[in-house]
Amino acid sequence: MRRLFIANRGEIAVRIIRTAKEMGIATVVGVSEADVDSLAAHIADEHALLGPAPAPASYLNQDAVVAAALEHGCDALHPGYGFLSENAAFAAKVAEAGLIWVGPAAEAIGMMGNKAQARDAARRAGVPILKGTDGPLRPEDDALEIAREIGYPLVVKASAGGGGRGIRFVHHEAELLSTIEMARGEAGAVFGDPTVYLERFVEFARHVEVQILGDGKDFIHLGDRDCSMQRRSQKVIEEAPAPDLPDVVRRTIRESSVELARQCGYSGAGTVEFLYDPIRQEAAFIEMNTRIQVEHPITEQITSVDLVREQLLIAYEGAMSLMQEDVAFTGHAIECRINAEDPEKNFFPSPGRIARLAWPEGSGVRVDSGVGEGSVVTPFYDSMLAKLVVHASDRPGGIEATLQALQNTRIEGVKTTIPMHSTLLSRPEFADVAHHSKFIENMPDLLEAP
Amino acid sequence: MRRLFIANRGEIAVRIIRTAKEMGIATVVGVSEADVDSLAAHIADEHALLGPAPAPASYLNQDAVVAAALEHGCDALHPGYGFLSENAAFAAKVAEAGLIWVGPAAEAIGMMGNKAQARDAARRAGVPILKGTDGPLRPEDDALEIAREIGYPLVVKASAGGGGRGIRFVHHEAELLSTIEMARGEAGAVFGDPTVYLERFVEFARHVEVQILGDGKDFIHLGDRDCSMQRRSQKVIEEAPAPDLPDVVRRTIRESSVELARQCGYSGAGTVEFLYDPIRQEAAFIEMNTRIQVEHPITEQITSVDLVREQLLIAYEGAMSLMQEDVAFTGHAIECRINAEDPEKNFFPSPGRIARLAWPEGSGVRVDSGVGEGSVVTPFYDSMLAKLVVHASDRPGGIEATLQALQNTRIEGVKTTIPMHSTLLSRPEFADVAHHSKFIENMPDLLEAP
Repeated sequence: MRRLFIANRGEIAVRIIRTAKEMGIATVVGVSEADVDSLAAHIADEHALLGPAPAPASYLNQDAVVAAALEHGCDALHPGYGFLSENAAFAAKVAEAGLIWVGPAAEAIGMMGNKAQARDAARRAGVPILKGTDGPLRPEDDALEIAREIGYPLVVKASAGGGGRGIRFVHHEAELLSTIEMARGEAGAVFGDPTVYLERFVEFARHVEVQILGDGKDFIHLGDRDCSMQRRSQKVIEEAPAPDLPDVVRRTIRESSVELARQCGYSGAGTVEFLYDPIRQEAAFIEMNTRIQVEHPITEQITSVDLVREQLLIAYEGAMSLMQEDVAFTGHAIECRINAEDPEKNFFPSPGRIARLAWPEGSGVRVDSGVGEGSVVTPFYDSMLAKLVVHASDRPGGIEATLQALQNTRIEGVKTTIPMHSTLLSRPEFADVAHHSKFIENMPDLLEAP
Repeated sequence: MRRLFIANRGEIAVRIIRTAKEMGIATVVGVSEADVDSLAAHIADEHALLGPAPAPASYLNQDAVVAAALEHGCDALHPGYGFLSENAAFAAKVAEAGLIWVGPAAEAIGMMGNKAQARDAARRAGVPILKGTDGPLRPEDDALEIAREIGYPLVVKASAGGGGRGIRFVHHEAELLSTIEMARGEAGAVFGDPTVYLERFVEFARHVEVQILGDGKDFIHLGDRDCSMQRRSQKVIEEAPAPDLPDVVRRTIRESSVELARQCGYSGAGTVEFLYDPIRQEAAFIEMNTRIQVEHPITEQITSVDLVREQLLIAYEGAMSLMQEDVAFTGHAIECRINAEDPEKNFFPSPGRIARLAWPEGSGVRVDSGVGEGSVVTPFYDSMLAKLVVHASDRPGGIEATLQALQNTRIEGVKTTIPMHSTLLSRPEFADVAHHSKFIENMPDLLEAP
């Protein structure tokens, strides 16, 4: 009898347990003290206490997780998303303990976790890359010529910077040389290294991504998703397929993502993320996520493929159940991440007891939830309660059906982001695919009075 | 702006309204006095009062329905299932009033409503027919020879009988002639007509059906369903695709059903029902239903086709959106009809107020419901509250997932058939597809203590 350890919590733990049960695989979920009474703990065959509520003492405690999996007689471990899911050292540790790691090899995780290595691998696979100097801009380089090639607007970035620091914008050629000079001086002073590089700047960028699957021998894609509606770089609404994408762009990102997986001998589910410039109609590689994605259900709804099942088949049997020609796409799916946050208090987390909970029903509606009525939402973890996923025949129908479903959702006891979703989905910019990843930030009054 | 009148109630009214909304079609639902506060009335753009609660005074009142549709400016009428949906005279009346009838032409409804005509049409289309004399057994016929051709066991039926009356079983050749004699005498005495005919008797029959769509030009099938788990000839659990069906049988029933639709120039959604003999591995035509079926969601889940949308496209635009080669099948879907009935009181309807209602969520779970929390279940109509539909990768996974979903459903205030579904789905006979349409009746203790 197969026995799977789930090293995660909330909706993704529940979702993994459900598919494992369907496959006849026994389940053990690791829980913190705060989650002993969680939905995941209730529906798993067993649960194992990992430690106190703060994640470093439980969900991120690598040794405690591996020990619990071994103690409960598990033969495999699914890391979900977040927490330890993209930790190459942990993946290696799991394998060394004799457990099957449900995910790609530690090497692939490590490579994709290194920005420079990932970008090199992407370039070799023919994945489109954001135009730039692709390395330091040397003092002897003809910056004007290089910049003309890249195109304006562009950014001058400090090589030693990161996380949005050490960035200067250049909108016109006339500003270029003086800005580079300033940036070098600043970088030397702030980071102790004056090296800078140039990169194209994409205004109004959309976030587009490709779902891939590989089993080390075959590599396929399951189409694309758009996750442009973001708030402070956190995805808020996702949809599949990505709307308003020229055929050539869609084909390019899909095929090159498969090629990237092939060149890594990738084994598992993965997502290749792109920044899409709707003005130039070009996509550029951002990164590859080497795990199941929060928004995977929208791909499942339009393909009828159970991605967690494929992950488990690949891990346990070394082969996925389908080939590229088996993948067909139907309709349009939209996902809203429903968080326990108070829109009136600047989206501050809203912990509490869920006194009342009624999910919407009907054709095309799917809810992936980590909570039930009576569940207590603690302040220790991510505030996502559930994902509302709606599948319809086309995008306008999907928007309408999602609005209906949001209206039919009732959650009492904690504040949620449901009003925000209704506001965003009702915007003409969303209907017209004129939104972008900074849409919410650029409209400060948008979420004031839903 | 298109405007659709829904001449039905409960979950199917809700379901039709939702798809209409997704397509940008305004909706008006006709309601009885008992349904003014129903979920369907709430979510439709408008509702029209048809009359008092008893169906003959409201939902079956043809003139009131047509008048309400015209009064509210509707251009089309969807009859749902049951009520007036297979009433050829009503379909004609709707068309005469200048409204689009969402369904096949009155002629097709009339023909399929006539048992003899339907059987003739089926035979012409190459649909397999139950072996029998196919007409009266004349006194001069060689009954022994004919019976050998049909095979035993067989039934002797009075031509003037019907509804289970005037039937005698013959298990061995030795009983044949005396039974025919007896049956003739009886039929003459009881019905005033001694005519009888012979028909094969199928023990342990399964109920299998094929979903078809036609738009008058093209005709396709959307695969098969099995509805063998019945209680007093009412379907209880349905699944798609039909399990344990030899390829040749599956192909035959699908293709001949499409041919039957083609020969009628059929326009709309329809279902061709078959009795399947698992011992002889043969299917035989029962009848064709010329409307959307209660169990249509399981087909939608395995094909990702919205059947109500196709009905509306055919009605409004004269063409469905897909061809046979666009239809692909994924996984296995199971539907449980959840009725407000009291299993401890021999499944007597259990009206009342729904004090508490929580549907299950998660991947692959769909609930089509006609009620919400606080809804009052009246004694006037069919006792079905909702349909729980679960889609999984394969049949064992689907059974497991349905059991999980049933366990996660909470309905208080009325008694429901949920415990019965858990009992039936847990039976080894169901897992082995060893059940049949008399399974529940043949095991009197089955539903005693769930």
